[in-house]
Amino acid sequence: MNFELNILGCGSAKPTTHHQPTSQILNVRGKYFMIDCGEGAQTQMQMMGLSMANIGHIFISHNHGDHVFGLPGLIGTMDLLGRTAELHIHGPQQVGEMLEFLQHIYYAEIGYEVIFHPIDTRQHQLIFEDRSITVHSIPLEHRIPSVGFLFREKPGLPHIRREMIDAFQIPVSQINNIKAGASWTTEDGTVIPHERLTTPATPSRSYAYCSDTIYLPELKEIIKGVNLLYHEATYMHERALRAEQTRHTTALQAATLARDAEVGQLCVGHFSAAIKDEAALLREAQSVFPNTVLAKEGLVISI
Amino acid sequence: MNFELNILGCGSAKPTTHHQPTSQILNVRGKYFMIDCGEGAQTQMQMMGLSMANIGHIFISHNHGDHVFGLPGLIGTMDLLGRTAELHIHGPQQVGEMLEFLQHIYYAEIGYEVIFHPIDTRQHQLIFEDRSITVHSIPLEHRIPSVGFLFREKPGLPHIRREMIDAFQIPVSQINNIKAGASWTTEDGTVIPHERLTTPATPSRSYAYCSDTIYLPELKEIIKGVNLLYHEATYMHERALRAEQTRHTTALQAATLARDAEVGQLCVGHFSAAIKDEAALLREAQSVFPNTVLAKEGLVISI
Repeated sequence: MNFELNILGCGSAKPTTHHQPTSQILNVRGKYFMIDCGEGAQTQMQMMGLSMANIGHIFISHNHGDHVFGLPGLIGTMDLLGRTAELHIHGPQQVGEMLEFLQHIYYAEIGYEVIFHPIDTRQHQLIFEDRSITVHSIPLEHRIPSVGFLFREKPGLPHIRREMIDAFQIPVSQINNIKAGASWTTEDGTVIPHERLTTPATPSRSYAYCSDTIYLPELKEIIKGVNLLYHEATYMHERALRAEQTRHTTALQAATLARDAEVGQLCVGHFSAAIKDEAALLREAQSVFPNTVLAKEGLVISI
Repeated sequence: MNFELNILGCGSAKPTTHHQPTSQILNVRGKYFMIDCGEGAQTQMQMMGLSMANIGHIFISHNHGDHVFGLPGLIGTMDLLGRTAELHIHGPQQVGEMLEFLQHIYYAEIGYEVIFHPIDTRQHQLIFEDRSITVHSIPLEHRIPSVGFLFREKPGLPHIRREMIDAFQIPVSQINNIKAGASWTTEDGTVIPHERLTTPATPSRSYAYCSDTIYLPELKEIIKGVNLLYHEATYMHERALRAEQTRHTTALQAATLARDAEVGQLCVGHFSAAIKDEAALLREAQSVFPNTVLAKEGLVISI
């Protein structure tokens, strides 16, 4: 079952020929959750063969152009493609103002509804759930209100041990009960406990997105043990002062957070246009947290 | 002296993997005039090695997303690049509403001024001039107010015939006068007429942009004899009804206008995403007007 991250863009505000502005698709079993939507995101989706029809929810971290200026075009294209399903957009209050303007001027007559869900960027709380996942907000700190996202699969059911079912001749009709936690009583009254009939559920997978933000060591509690962390690393640590001033993070800091939060893997992105040697940035991060990769347009990470 | 058209994008509203939405740069001796600004225009400029600093004026045909959604990002990038020069944007009144919104929400503190010049889309009139060119509006007809642009070099001065200057020993100080139309009187009182001292000025070059619009045969008067006409050809003529309904033009119609207006060359663009065989579209246009080319991202046409 898919749980994979697709990088559409991982540059920062000043465009370059080698990076697109920020946007990602988290593919959870065929449902696409878009995270940020920089200019050109829809083109990148087409290049990667990702269908816009699969997007139900878009999560926007903050209202800077390099994270939202792909929305106007995307909303229009979805209409041209005949969308009728609601599109839910979650983000700081300011993002709602843009959506309101777009609906007023450009999209008064589109064939589907765009529903905005404001996020309190100061709270770590549940902002969305469906049958398969939960999404929690992660309070970040940037020049304007900014928020990260923690995607977590809901725990699955335990797996039935086929050989036990056969051995005790348990009828098929009981299998859902057993999965849900029931034990089994044989004809002679022996109770076979649930644990003997099943193996534990597949561990649920998780993904945390933190961009744009200064280095916040306290985030380690929220993102503890996630399988994959995407964290901005706009600068190398030699420009730590610049990072502090512009409310961004260095590669070293991102890796330190990954290490302290004991995540499985770190993906760094949101590179400053001034970064000429990304390999050096990667080495810096890996010196603290070896299991780090560089984001790159077109990269797909299976979690 | 440059007078060349750079195609940044020539697709229509529904994005494809092979075309970007509409945008062009007309390079007049190093001054860039941008025409329309679809999403991704700034990236295309970078790909083509065109500097955003050279843009002084942007002309917007109409307020549909595929012609304007590159503006938000472009305006921000120009600020990040340290722009201080005024940026002039010309277009139908509705474009001004977007600029106002952008300035209010995103660009309250940028380091340069964006000045909007509304265009009356029903009039054919002078909307801009500087030392080297004039720009006239071309009334178009689309689903919303839409306007084309006629760029025309100002007539240059005649060229001095060096051998006549030498023969009559005319002092250098008189050359500007002669270029400006003066004759020369020799010491013995003989008048050498201006025409003998000069050859005619280089013919001034012209470019007309017509998109988006239905086929308007009467435009032939306005664009008579231009060196290059860019005209939308969203559909092939087998879909003439669809073109009529959506207020677009077919390849055959665009070529008919080019022929009737006796233009030098026709470049067709704004292709519907449904066009699979652009060669067929080109053949259709060339059957009426042979000197037709297909627009293409990255194409540069020297006029």
